[in-house]
Amino acid sequence: MTFRAPVRDLAFALEAIAGIDDVAATGAFPDYDADLMSAVLDAAGQFSEQVLAPLNRVGDQKGSVYAEGSVTAAPGFADAYRQFAAGGWTGLSADPAHGGQGLPKALELAAFETVHAANMAFGLCPMLSLAAIEALQEHGTDAQKDTWLSKLVSGEWTGAMVLTEPQAGTDLGSLTATATPNGDGTYALNGQKIFITWGDHDATDNIVHLVLARLPDAPAGPKGISLFLASKYLLKDDGSLGERNAFRPVGVEHKLGIHASPTCVMSYEGATAELVGEPNQGLSHMFTMMNAARLAVGVEGVGIAERAYQAALAYALDRRQGRSVWTGEHNAPIFDHPDVRRMLSVMKARIEAARGICLSTGVAADLARHAETEEDRRKWKAREDLFTPIAKAWSTDMGVEVASMGVQVHGGMGFIEETGAAQHYRDARIAPIYEGTNGVQAMDLVGRKLSMDGGEAARA
Amino acid sequence: MTFRAPVRDLAFALEAIAGIDDVAATGAFPDYDADLMSAVLDAAGQFSEQVLAPLNRVGDQKGSVYAEGSVTAAPGFADAYRQFAAGGWTGLSADPAHGGQGLPKALELAAFETVHAANMAFGLCPMLSLAAIEALQEHGTDAQKDTWLSKLVSGEWTGAMVLTEPQAGTDLGSLTATATPNGDGTYALNGQKIFITWGDHDATDNIVHLVLARLPDAPAGPKGISLFLASKYLLKDDGSLGERNAFRPVGVEHKLGIHASPTCVMSYEGATAELVGEPNQGLSHMFTMMNAARLAVGVEGVGIAERAYQAALAYALDRRQGRSVWTGEHNAPIFDHPDVRRMLSVMKARIEAARGICLSTGVAADLARHAETEEDRRKWKAREDLFTPIAKAWSTDMGVEVASMGVQVHGGMGFIEETGAAQHYRDARIAPIYEGTNGVQAMDLVGRKLSMDGGEAARA
Repeated sequence: MTFRAPVRDLAFALEAIAGIDDVAATGAFPDYDADLMSAVLDAAGQFSEQVLAPLNRVGDQKGSVYAEGSVTAAPGFADAYRQFAAGGWTGLSADPAHGGQGLPKALELAAFETVHAANMAFGLCPMLSLAAIEALQEHGTDAQKDTWLSKLVSGEWTGAMVLTEPQAGTDLGSLTATATPNGDGTYALNGQKIFITWGDHDATDNIVHLVLARLPDAPAGPKGISLFLASKYLLKDDGSLGERNAFRPVGVEHKLGIHASPTCVMSYEGATAELVGEPNQGLSHMFTMMNAARLAVGVEGVGIAERAYQAALAYALDRRQGRSVWTGEHNAPIFDHPDVRRMLSVMKARIEAARGICLSTGVAADLARHAETEEDRRKWKAREDLFTPIAKAWSTDMGVEVASMGVQVHGGMGFIEETGAAQHYRDARIAPIYEGTNGVQAMDLVGRKLSMDGGEAARA
Repeated sequence: MTFRAPVRDLAFALEAIAGIDDVAATGAFPDYDADLMSAVLDAAGQFSEQVLAPLNRVGDQKGSVYAEGSVTAAPGFADAYRQFAAGGWTGLSADPAHGGQGLPKALELAAFETVHAANMAFGLCPMLSLAAIEALQEHGTDAQKDTWLSKLVSGEWTGAMVLTEPQAGTDLGSLTATATPNGDGTYALNGQKIFITWGDHDATDNIVHLVLARLPDAPAGPKGISLFLASKYLLKDDGSLGERNAFRPVGVEHKLGIHASPTCVMSYEGATAELVGEPNQGLSHMFTMMNAARLAVGVEGVGIAERAYQAALAYALDRRQGRSVWTGEHNAPIFDHPDVRRMLSVMKARIEAARGICLSTGVAADLARHAETEEDRRKWKAREDLFTPIAKAWSTDMGVEVASMGVQVHGGMGFIEETGAAQHYRDARIAPIYEGTNGVQAMDLVGRKLSMDGGEAARA
């Protein structure tokens, strides 16, 4: 077993640190109790250990492959995804009206930590679906929810967030993709997008793209951006899959890590799309889902750190070298060397702290929606807003540092790819960058969140 | 140009921080003056920029290759090495009696920083030769010096340090390779060694291995280890190359970084060797050369950080995104974003500090040999000893942190291998591990060096 889901630590963090009982006490989650929490974490942990963790290395070695206009997932990933969807894992916190299980967001985050730890490249696929679900729940029409949401919640289709263009990364306001009305209520999307995570793959029949683009005559800059939905296959009137839509991947990036997560360059060539939410409100709609995604990326940082820690601990208990300062034993496990133990303690302590911050943010998100009074919901929302950039930036910086220490604990073996510690070091490095670089999180925290409502949330 | 040697910064650090004028004032380096220093740094910088830097990426992509009992250097590396040797770069600080140029060690370190920055995998090859030169100058007999030293100094042959075995890494005392007298003054070496940097390659006709092994009836543990020299080809009586010696690589490691540096598993099967220095004094002899190598690895950390910094700075000046807080300009270089500038400033400041520490250690090493009075030499030796673990550990940890920040400055592009920032992040990670992990350096500093002579060196 290369990975053991830290189910006890997760339950402890949810209950004793994040205070998930307050979420249960709202009455908004009638099915939820401590037993259910344990059952969900156990089952997620088992799936992560048994199905996802064994694919982590092959995914790194083989990666996803682009050829002739389509992307093939890394070996075993499509099948693992279908098992994941069949297990209902995409819909854990989604609205039961659309097939979700209506459980607290905080519990979902804890369950997903085991997924990211087991296989960070895999975890990105459902993470992007969750973001699309969030956006449609918030901004979709009833018709859009009926058509798209249930398929995303069930995992039958996956979602992708399509924002970045070569000249428009952090500054999305400068994007140039266009959406032209077709006259029948649909739009024709044109433009090239980059860094589209799981933008194409062969694990599901269809993929739902949420795309930022400009309407004709839209104002320049960030106020002229709208959100559109385009799916890989057009739907027939009965909802079954019809023709291929006019967009396609034109390549995948060759990356430092998360090789099994296809990072696509996508070309939209008159792709048929529908508007989501209000015209020219695309950026603010997208930020709804980016906030959730930022917290999810924080949890990814915790997950990869947990994985790196477990590998380092196992090696430190197994590898024998030198004399123990505790027992005097010769050829003792290197766990007995104070500096090794110091590194492992620091790793463990930082993981627990970051896990506590992330799950506390998740609890705040649940209470922001479900606390009893409007005043309470406002306060919890402020806490969610305040904590989100901290959860994202601190946890992902921590992920890189802990993965680096994980290599160090392994000594020379850590630098050898076969050992596995190096993959964690490579994989972890993306998390401080995507979903808003950690510098952007810092600006958000200091420039906006600390002074919100005269600093009320920060004082609280 | 992907790399510009920081010649001015190096000259400044040598003169204003490390105080190389004190070395010149000893009179031990009659050829040395400030003009010569500049000329050496300029020439080394040019070589690093024009010959070594362009090979850095191909070395990463293709790596060195093992097949059928021998190792082929990465494309272009053998030729670059021969140019390096022809330029006299291996012999910069070596004894003129053996073909060296007799220049200060501190200047050599500064020149080598440009080599490591341009191509860290390449730089390891001459770095190991320097260690072998150091060991032979210190512990070799006159005959050994005549036979081996001049070939190492000229760069005609390269050197390798052969210490580690699977069960004996940090704890060299547990190594089991054996050396059995052949009756003619030579010994037969047997055993398997791992992590042998540039242990085999096709860049030179011959390779000189300095090998730790046990004589028959040697005491157990660290006091029973001796140092041997074995060369890839046996020498005929006239000094020309004869038969192949009985050792060979049996594989190279697949590593996180420095792919062009072959990390060999070596097998010794009755290889003919000669003893270097005293029987059972191998560890202490090896530590002579390990101290020099540790300082060299510190300089490697500075070099890779400098390279990462230059790449990040160039990208930050070129990449445009968002609005400048200084000028109000739209679509401004990201250099104008405070967090990007903060990262670049931190990178630059840490590099300068580490460079100052490393070159100050180099000056101390020069003065430990050449200061006028014995008392002064003792004091400078104490400073060299005190600074060496700091120079190694702090500079290499800094190298990893700065390379990681370098990726961050590049944003999403930093995670794409083609950009180059990712290679620095991967390459840098070995330096805190080899030549004594940074945890070992910490023990050396705190356990030995701080309290040396009642703490005199630390107080000074």
